[in-house]
Amino acid sequence: MMNTTTISKQEFYDRIERFQSNIRAEGLDACLVHASESDMANVRYLSEFWPTFEAAAVFVPAEGEAVLIVGPESDHHAARRSVFKNIEKMLEYRESAEPECPGMEFTSFKDIAARYFTKGTMKKLGIVGWSVTTLPVYMALKEQLPDVELVKADQTLLPLRFIKSADELASMRKAFAISELAVEAILNEIKPGMTELQVIGIAQREIYKHGGEYEGHALYCFCGESTKHAISRPTHNKIVKNEIIQLNIGARVDGYSSSVGLPISIGPLPERKRKLVEFGLEAHFKTMEMLKPGIPAASVVKDYEAWVKSRGFEKYLLYGPCHAIGMMEVEQPWMESTSDYDLEKNMTFQVDTFFYDHDFGLRWENGVALTDGGVEKLSSKFMKFMEI
Amino acid sequence: MMNTTTISKQEFYDRIERFQSNIRAEGLDACLVHASESDMANVRYLSEFWPTFEAAAVFVPAEGEAVLIVGPESDHHAARRSVFKNIEKMLEYRESAEPECPGMEFTSFKDIAARYFTKGTMKKLGIVGWSVTTLPVYMALKEQLPDVELVKADQTLLPLRFIKSADELASMRKAFAISELAVEAILNEIKPGMTELQVIGIAQREIYKHGGEYEGHALYCFCGESTKHAISRPTHNKIVKNEIIQLNIGARVDGYSSSVGLPISIGPLPERKRKLVEFGLEAHFKTMEMLKPGIPAASVVKDYEAWVKSRGFEKYLLYGPCHAIGMMEVEQPWMESTSDYDLEKNMTFQVDTFFYDHDFGLRWENGVALTDGGVEKLSSKFMKFMEI
Repeated sequence: MMNTTTISKQEFYDRIERFQSNIRAEGLDACLVHASESDMANVRYLSEFWPTFEAAAVFVPAEGEAVLIVGPESDHHAARRSVFKNIEKMLEYRESAEPECPGMEFTSFKDIAARYFTKGTMKKLGIVGWSVTTLPVYMALKEQLPDVELVKADQTLLPLRFIKSADELASMRKAFAISELAVEAILNEIKPGMTELQVIGIAQREIYKHGGEYEGHALYCFCGESTKHAISRPTHNKIVKNEIIQLNIGARVDGYSSSVGLPISIGPLPERKRKLVEFGLEAHFKTMEMLKPGIPAASVVKDYEAWVKSRGFEKYLLYGPCHAIGMMEVEQPWMESTSDYDLEKNMTFQVDTFFYDHDFGLRWENGVALTDGGVEKLSSKFMKFMEI
Repeated sequence: MMNTTTISKQEFYDRIERFQSNIRAEGLDACLVHASESDMANVRYLSEFWPTFEAAAVFVPAEGEAVLIVGPESDHHAARRSVFKNIEKMLEYRESAEPECPGMEFTSFKDIAARYFTKGTMKKLGIVGWSVTTLPVYMALKEQLPDVELVKADQTLLPLRFIKSADELASMRKAFAISELAVEAILNEIKPGMTELQVIGIAQREIYKHGGEYEGHALYCFCGESTKHAISRPTHNKIVKNEIIQLNIGARVDGYSSSVGLPISIGPLPERKRKLVEFGLEAHFKTMEMLKPGIPAASVVKDYEAWVKSRGFEKYLLYGPCHAIGMMEVEQPWMESTSDYDLEKNMTFQVDTFFYDHDFGLRWENGVALTDGGVEKLSSKFMKFMEI
């Protein structure tokens, strides 16, 4: 295998075994798990393979050995990177430029189904990663397996990812530590006149220098009005003094994402903005105090929103206060007022405290892992407001 | 608008107008154009919006004003970044973590259709970006517009992207120039003992420093056996002497991708490997000589393959020798033996010369734009084999 992860091979095999047990419990005959370049989590979790340019999938029968499915050009990469021996090429996982690949030979879903099921015995196939599964894959399934019922089956795999193992937690701690080193470099080097994108370049340099394998998410550096965007991208906009500058910097290690978020300013920030920034930090600490195993996720949200309201800041609130983090920077389960699960030990959350006004916003972000009685902070160096 | 592109607003509006003319010519009532975080080209081409975390789409009626559709958290970003005034939020474009967003209000496909069409008059909707369109979008269309026929309609938009404008060519020249600066920095700093990923960090630093907005594709640095992978990802594998090191480094500017690819070694490369590297470079030049407007794309492929065979190297050939480049590093049209189009002035291709053996491979990559009588090289500084 290539030198890509510290997660043991055995842990991957254990994941597949638990997944197969869920597949059987749901009354499914098999699951097809999808991944794209930017949404690779489910396939990497099961196989360690991480597609680029092309897409990929894992076909997992209720009983028997799983198979990794890749696009026309990824077979050598998959053979050396994944923990799987069974690897097949399918045209449906090719690049979006849709090469025809004349002369190449491909497997079909029909071929794969025929290995595990005698004709007519495969009745129900679960699709995992439903929200990123693409039309070429769906249309090929409908055409090649017309009698098989296709159902969304994210619930067979995603809950396994909710609770992190000791190895996963170690990878996440490392990712957050690298993110903090990257933030530190930015604080040392950021100057008025640099572009937001040039600030991102400092972070990218540090992430790879210290052992990261990629960004944990598309990195944020916004100065001024763009800070009010809940989601955004950095631009050639210049960093200026006495203005809010939002940093959300995340490294990826062994597939595991991280992000450290903080608003800063170069020189003093006007009173109105500083006040919201400081309230945001207070709210950020408040959430961390609330988190502990055994309590309903929805109650954290309701208590948080009630507390924000009691302080008179509800009009600045878009959502909050947490979402799970792992192989995706934002992954299931979200923590919303409609959530119906309880917090458990070794769940990992990104405490994501975002407030915004008509002309600016601010976001404090740090990761936590749930312990017996509360949380272990996966990052904590930058939980103070700095006017540098 | 945010400071994200040098392409003029008018050029975006002209693109929509030409697209609408194609929509009418195909007998479609409208098109829905999809984009994801890693496959944003079609939506960015029409709107300048570039999604992250969430997905996005553009709904373009055969007549009338187009609408940009974004996920629950991207509305402020889209309003300030895109050239569109019509922006709608839909839950189907949310993050893959599938937040429920209680309390938020969303538009539906039914609402959008009702703005342009009286009941029953919308009969045929084209899907552009078919290969990346996801199941939540498809299922919502089927449910909300059960009488509308959905057809793959990439041919209404993609050919517009084949021929680059003067502004697009300027952005691409800049992207390739930044890629060359990044390669130069690597050549100055690469040392045995660094990891492949640390080499990538050098490139990332330079891309952002010199005005890039992102990587043009997931960057490549592979040392040793991984160089045989047509597609791969860099790892914590260490750079060693007297071994083939493959670099494919690409910056992105104004949405336009680039890539400069070359094999190098630190110290002399063994004869067997050097021979294939040098043949590859000869083949790379050969392709560049063949490219000119007016000739069938398939003939380039056939002539190239015949030439490789005449030299006795066909067993080392996976494919070749070109694919189009633009907003995606690999985009349509591919150049394959089955291609049925002729080369035209201002098409841009990535000359992508890849040969591999059982234990290594090499790839020369440079961009070209077709001129009246041949090609303008968009990158050319590193078309020589270097043992540094």
